[in-house]
Amino acid sequence: MKVGEKHYRTIWVKKGDNKTVQIIDQRNLPHEFIIEDLKTVEETARAIKDMHVRGAGLVGATAGFGIYFATLQASKENFDEDVKKLSEKILATRPTTNNISYAVKKQLRAMKKGKTVQEKISIALKTAQEITDEDAEFCRRLGEHGYKIIEEISKKKNGEPVNILTHCNAGWLAFVDYGTATAPIYEAFNRGINVHVWVDETRPRNQGARLTAWELSNHGVPHTVIADNVGGHLMQHGMVDMVIVGTDRTTHTGDVANKIGTYLKALAAKDNNIPFYVALPSSTFDWEMKDGVKEIPIEERGNEEVKYAQGLLDGKVQKVLLTPKDSPAANYAFDVTPRRLITGLITERGICEASEKGVLGLYPEKKK
Amino acid sequence: MKVGEKHYRTIWVKKGDNKTVQIIDQRNLPHEFIIEDLKTVEETARAIKDMHVRGAGLVGATAGFGIYFATLQASKENFDEDVKKLSEKILATRPTTNNISYAVKKQLRAMKKGKTVQEKISIALKTAQEITDEDAEFCRRLGEHGYKIIEEISKKKNGEPVNILTHCNAGWLAFVDYGTATAPIYEAFNRGINVHVWVDETRPRNQGARLTAWELSNHGVPHTVIADNVGGHLMQHGMVDMVIVGTDRTTHTGDVANKIGTYLKALAAKDNNIPFYVALPSSTFDWEMKDGVKEIPIEERGNEEVKYAQGLLDGKVQKVLLTPKDSPAANYAFDVTPRRLITGLITERGICEASEKGVLGLYPEKKK
Repeated sequence: MKVGEKHYRTIWVKKGDNKTVQIIDQRNLPHEFIIEDLKTVEETARAIKDMHVRGAGLVGATAGFGIYFATLQASKENFDEDVKKLSEKILATRPTTNNISYAVKKQLRAMKKGKTVQEKISIALKTAQEITDEDAEFCRRLGEHGYKIIEEISKKKNGEPVNILTHCNAGWLAFVDYGTATAPIYEAFNRGINVHVWVDETRPRNQGARLTAWELSNHGVPHTVIADNVGGHLMQHGMVDMVIVGTDRTTHTGDVANKIGTYLKALAAKDNNIPFYVALPSSTFDWEMKDGVKEIPIEERGNEEVKYAQGLLDGKVQKVLLTPKDSPAANYAFDVTPRRLITGLITERGICEASEKGVLGLYPEKKK
Repeated sequence: MKVGEKHYRTIWVKKGDNKTVQIIDQRNLPHEFIIEDLKTVEETARAIKDMHVRGAGLVGATAGFGIYFATLQASKENFDEDVKKLSEKILATRPTTNNISYAVKKQLRAMKKGKTVQEKISIALKTAQEITDEDAEFCRRLGEHGYKIIEEISKKKNGEPVNILTHCNAGWLAFVDYGTATAPIYEAFNRGINVHVWVDETRPRNQGARLTAWELSNHGVPHTVIADNVGGHLMQHGMVDMVIVGTDRTTHTGDVANKIGTYLKALAAKDNNIPFYVALPSSTFDWEMKDGVKEIPIEERGNEEVKYAQGLLDGKVQKVLLTPKDSPAANYAFDVTPRRLITGLITERGICEASEKGVLGLYPEKKK
């Protein structure tokens, strides 16, 4: 997508140096736009864990390149074992997101076809690039499926703005390109459909206020930032026509782990009879777990993210203390929305019911 | 309640000067503790509107003193008319809160008994003090009724901590003393019941993170600050035993206007079968409106509260910009929780069902 006049993806191999990968360090957006070089497994793991990169698809793509770095760092003697060991550093970064293990598994499986170390290194680079391209392509396709829902509502409203609420950032910054929740919105906007987006600020890290608002601004999409507390009130008063969110892991039975607070919006949508959609590439499906609320591990992060808020002051990104200095705080990063609250899943293959039947209908090869 | 070792109320007549009222300016708490003098209707209206004071009971009490100032400012010739006109300035401050009109009506009614201007001024001072004392006394009493609910849960949990979630600040800072949502908690804590409070930070003004956390710290009550997004996840995982919140206006049919986001927590409590209580003095009841969602006016405040976060940096209270500079933002201050989601109302007369029948059962004199 565009930043100013230039087209960017969120991750790419550095021009003329295929041992370096470049990312947009998203921590200080929208106030500072910084490009960062990654060259090692350790740098890659830190970039994921400390959220220089974040979002399901992008951490997956970054993990893919992490495994490529592992092949560069592994000894020739114990190559497979070393790569496996280094991959643990990548897997340990963020427990909730499915796309990390998806990328690592895909890499390890692909490398088995290589006979020599050099062949395996080549395969790892190629596979990392494939994961990246696949993510962008899947997001593009789900936008093509998803915009039709918006178009339908637009027709019913005779062209009045379709008000779409989204939580966190499931935009192109969270993936390689296009995004998931935003892909149908961009597609609808590009086709001239009248849309307006309610952007949940998404405390504690404000990915909505910082990233989604910035993306939508850059693309010219009308939007309004709101506190996370507001969505229910808007829905009660007919000011939301649909909700679209992304996800970090979705069980093949339809339960959706996404940024903390998503469940509350799903409850409000249900209570007010408003369609609630989740958009995801199939790399986010967990094909093993059946009960998302019980089984999906929920990441807990440092409490300083809750006690402080970060933003621009005097031209610098700075943090202010919100709470009494010694008050304890807790920071659960995700919650799980049960399938019963979800209208549908928007995937690269089309839209399905949030249920085992619905998902396996689109992905029959996953039937056991 | 105590601040350090000293007992404070949130509003009082200045010692030795009964033409000055003092308040705690709550805008910079917990970082700065400032006492402010009020001497005029205009200062009083500004203190309410700009939230030097806030919370249903406290804005009611402050409004009461505002009318006393009106009697001091009114001309002798057009006294009644002048007081009426000045009272409009108080009524116009914050549309959602019932306690303001409660206090103004009570004052204007009481003053009718005065025959001379001097008598009316005396009545206004006395009535303002009565409103203040009544608020403190009602809060004390509702604590005595409400703690029994906590005690009951404590027994079932064999003394394990009772986890109580609260939203915004309905503590003593929001009233004259004791608070509403916090009164049962303080009472339970003082009686040795093991309690732990989940404190919603309550964006955009962070009354939870700033005020409730500060109150509970000062009183030694175990608590943990969380982002507003977290409560649903905690409830899904058995980490919340009950919810208690305050209210700015409750219809006599049981619908509750409270700080924006309350409705979302009520939905989550219902979905997880967790008791959801609302604590209020009867001054917060609206005896006219029947449908809270449709009828209660919802205040919209300036969008800078959403775009910025305020906190401590370098020893000063400062604001950081969260969003892109030009992104629009909206700031609805309250929402309405329908009675069907509420387990009970805790009042100074006891606990009742959130319904017309329940409320009129406790307040039979209000039957028409």
